[in-house]
Amino acid sequence: MSATLVELVRTQGLATTNDLCDATGMGRTVVAQRIGHLLEVGLLARRGKGRSTGGRAPRELRFHHEAATVFGVEVGVTSVMVGLTSLDGAPLEVREDAWSVTRGPEETLARIEAMMREILAARPDAPPLAGIGVGLPCPVEFASGRPVSPPILSGWDDYPVREWLASRFGVGVWVDNEVNAMALGELRAGTARGLDDFIYVKVGTGIGAGLVSAGRLHRGAQGCAGDIAHLCIDPASTRQCRCGKTGCLQTFASGNALGRTATRLAKSGESRPLARRLAEAGEVTAADVSAAAAQGDPVCLDLLSTAGERLGEALTSLINIFNPALVVVGGGVSMAGDLLLPSLRKVVYERSLPLATRDLRVALSEHADRAGVVGAALTAVEELLGPAHLDELTTLLTGKAS
Amino acid sequence: MSATLVELVRTQGLATTNDLCDATGMGRTVVAQRIGHLLEVGLLARRGKGRSTGGRAPRELRFHHEAATVFGVEVGVTSVMVGLTSLDGAPLEVREDAWSVTRGPEETLARIEAMMREILAARPDAPPLAGIGVGLPCPVEFASGRPVSPPILSGWDDYPVREWLASRFGVGVWVDNEVNAMALGELRAGTARGLDDFIYVKVGTGIGAGLVSAGRLHRGAQGCAGDIAHLCIDPASTRQCRCGKTGCLQTFASGNALGRTATRLAKSGESRPLARRLAEAGEVTAADVSAAAAQGDPVCLDLLSTAGERLGEALTSLINIFNPALVVVGGGVSMAGDLLLPSLRKVVYERSLPLATRDLRVALSEHADRAGVVGAALTAVEELLGPAHLDELTTLLTGKAS
Repeated sequence: MSATLVELVRTQGLATTNDLCDATGMGRTVVAQRIGHLLEVGLLARRGKGRSTGGRAPRELRFHHEAATVFGVEVGVTSVMVGLTSLDGAPLEVREDAWSVTRGPEETLARIEAMMREILAARPDAPPLAGIGVGLPCPVEFASGRPVSPPILSGWDDYPVREWLASRFGVGVWVDNEVNAMALGELRAGTARGLDDFIYVKVGTGIGAGLVSAGRLHRGAQGCAGDIAHLCIDPASTRQCRCGKTGCLQTFASGNALGRTATRLAKSGESRPLARRLAEAGEVTAADVSAAAAQGDPVCLDLLSTAGERLGEALTSLINIFNPALVVVGGGVSMAGDLLLPSLRKVVYERSLPLATRDLRVALSEHADRAGVVGAALTAVEELLGPAHLDELTTLLTGKAS
Repeated sequence: MSATLVELVRTQGLATTNDLCDATGMGRTVVAQRIGHLLEVGLLARRGKGRSTGGRAPRELRFHHEAATVFGVEVGVTSVMVGLTSLDGAPLEVREDAWSVTRGPEETLARIEAMMREILAARPDAPPLAGIGVGLPCPVEFASGRPVSPPILSGWDDYPVREWLASRFGVGVWVDNEVNAMALGELRAGTARGLDDFIYVKVGTGIGAGLVSAGRLHRGAQGCAGDIAHLCIDPASTRQCRCGKTGCLQTFASGNALGRTATRLAKSGESRPLARRLAEAGEVTAADVSAAAAQGDPVCLDLLSTAGERLGEALTSLINIFNPALVVVGGGVSMAGDLLLPSLRKVVYERSLPLATRDLRVALSEHADRAGVVGAALTAVEELLGPAHLDELTTLLTGKAS
């Protein structure tokens, strides 16, 4: 009940006792009492005055996101990023390290713990730490917080990530697939704020989608919903995917795929800037493709345009099936947004069903490289403020249960 | 609040005041008071005795689905079916007419009204009529109850179906896409009962899917989620689809597509039973293919097996994206279940991601040709028992508001 009130203020912007009574169907006395408690605890605050209704003007409520902090952790394949954020996901302090996730969960979590302790030491005046959210680059069983059959992360399968961190920091820990976390970040603090149905697509080293249905993450039965990397977009293709099949989206449009094609184009000399980069750095990556394309290299422009088309083909299926109001594109490759999106949009609007694209928007994420940290932090906030955990949070904030 | 209690008893099977207090977090006094009112109104009933907890044994609650009736209406492309059902969707009385939906909404609704009046006259002793649910073979804006840009149903676009029926029967009317209604029927009274995430696939004259996420229908931003008919499953195909594109699932595995191929096989004499049928009846349909296949005709067996494979290819995308726990297959073509499902399953389990198929079941609908009526009726029940309409229902049942 208190959780419902906090949710309505935080996500719907309801700001008066009257509105909250209307929305919940609860009596005024009970609602006022709960609001009083939430104000006392510090999860709600008053802001200025609301419109007068004749008598005393009610003072509007807002969610008091400064009441506590959470950690958001993004475990990437080649880096880890840790951020301490307010309850609105806004980072107060961030650390990033180059890191190989293949070093396994214990070494990785130990590194993360060290980064967290550094951050806490740097911000002794921060509000109390209330929880930790973690995004992993693999399917996760959300209820247990454990990785499930990660295809590339040996050693992580079924590892108790939640328990490891909870035992060290004494707060609630929630673990999800990083793309789901990023989708939640867009829903609560990004381009998708207030939308019911949208899709977040991450185009980075790998490719994945997070689906939001009726304002809630659709995780699926095994927590692997949104795995679009292996949609077959070209049955005639002979490109072999790591999954054992051919024609997967992943083999055409991921950062990995772009890097491989770029290496070939560098070696053959078809792209001069890539050849130069290869000679200088010893390797070329998707980021080099974006950089060269931004400088006008026609080969790299073409490469990004083709990747956008391939993404568009996969998104066409996704859009016909899910009928989102918005597709948010994020991840490393999306940093080449203006070079990638036109061809992607062209295919989507040409090939999807007219009704599904009537009001569809395709936009870039505004979170850039913070998307993982913000999303992971907000994953923890979502749970902390939910009916199952709000009591723990209020206890933490006041030293007594509601 | 009362709506939550009814939902918990009806869909979760919670049966005691204690369980309801635990599930809602509400105090015992309030819960007992609301239960008392719902018993009085007749939406809940007592059944036998629960386990004793030392003192007086609490008598278990159940949803009293006999309290009222609703109409479920399925408007197909070539028929209409109307059923009067209890609040659990079980039909008390059903009428079906051959009918062409192209006659437009007014003639069609007048026919439906006549069928309803016949049914009411035949069942003068039935509990009071509380609502009407309608399934249409096109996208529907659920909030307004109006068809949206139906690709084939000229005259139906934006027609006020809800208002037309509501003005004649004086009860609430809800209109949805028929496949969504069928999915809801499976969730509340079918193979998918109690599941959080599943997909219903109708393979009839056309093809469509209904998606259920976290126990709720995912309708999408324009109400056209689950439109899998136009997923491109063969970019190299030259089969022209009505939508203007080629390679659509619809051109391979729908009843229409089967009928067309069957006609060709009949004319060429490749299938003897089909040729015989064409000579006798002047046409051959998907049903003739099923019948001939059931008699062992190898050409028709092959045709159904190929259709199953094509469906499997489309479902592979759907399963990778949505990660359901169950796929329920229904619709006319699915009546050939044992001839269609093996090849469908083979492709799904071979090509979908291992994690997504780890616990996946693929099953036939048990509702057979009643799926549309049951689903439409339960669409109305779902709304009638929801927070927005429960008061109207209790007023109807008692003559006074709660």
